[in-house]
Amino acid sequence: MKVMVGGTFDPLHDGHKSLLGRSFEIAGSSGQVVIGLTTDSFASGKTHPIRPFASRKSELEEFIREKKFATPWIIEPLNDRFGSAIDADFDAIVVSEETLPVAVEINRHRREKGRRKVDIHQISCVLAEDGRWISSTRIYRGEIDVHGHVLR
Amino acid sequence: MKVMVGGTFDPLHDGHKSLLGRSFEIAGSSGQVVIGLTTDSFASGKTHPIRPFASRKSELEEFIREKKFATPWIIEPLNDRFGSAIDADFDAIVVSEETLPVAVEINRHRREKGRRKVDIHQISCVLAEDGRWISSTRIYRGEIDVHGHVLR
Repeated sequence: MKVMVGGTFDPLHDGHKSLLGRSFEIAGSSGQVVIGLTTDSFASGKTHPIRPFASRKSELEEFIREKKFATPWIIEPLNDRFGSAIDADFDAIVVSEETLPVAVEINRHRREKGRRKVDIHQISCVLAEDGRWISSTRIYRGEIDVHGHVLR
Repeated sequence: MKVMVGGTFDPLHDGHKSLLGRSFEIAGSSGQVVIGLTTDSFASGKTHPIRPFASRKSELEEFIREKKFATPWIIEPLNDRFGSAIDADFDAIVVSEETLPVAVEINRHRREKGRRKVDIHQISCVLAEDGRWISSTRIYRGEIDVHGHVLR
């Protein structure tokens, strides 16, 4: 099936890798994965500095190539929370527990526009060593590394 | 991946077929689908009469065989809302918009027991001709048929 997933992916941590891995798994080899990557101007709303779009895109591409996923994929710039997800023809959106509300909102907008709702696949978040979620904010603060190891 | 899905499936309508089809698609050919089928005593809480477990199971098996899904599958009796989903080792639970709260509850119980949460895949409900959900209750009332055609 055709799957959409989105994020800022900075840095690309084990939670992101699980989100992306699951997206490819669900799409299957005959499907497609569309990855929305936040633009610098949209991502600038975050509470910590973000690397430029091009760097984040390269890291993402490198991970996908290394994994040798069989499913075709593309990276699209995300200028807002929804990107093309309200108007595009696709089957499922993959989200974390944190971003589930965005998917619910996308379906509400799709229904208002007379489009069919899409499936929502919520992955279970990857936990750091301390039992809390891995997140970019925690990595930026120096609490954990990209694999969820506690640093202090 | 290993996927769990559950229901009463009486009668097996297009909404159920979409739920099951998606479960097999997500599981992939190297995965497994565990279908929880409500027992007669558990299903007796419904507002309308339910056919016996054996009849519902045959209809389910016939549908799966006709579809020639590549994924191994089993049918388990469901004696309560959770069945084996709180203790089993699996990856994702597939639910409709109606049964989403059960999946959220399952994850809460899993976490309490120190087990990892599972992914929750919520399919978009299949709509009847009149734009409302296909449901067994509506079919039983004679409002629509199993394909969602309006009968009166």
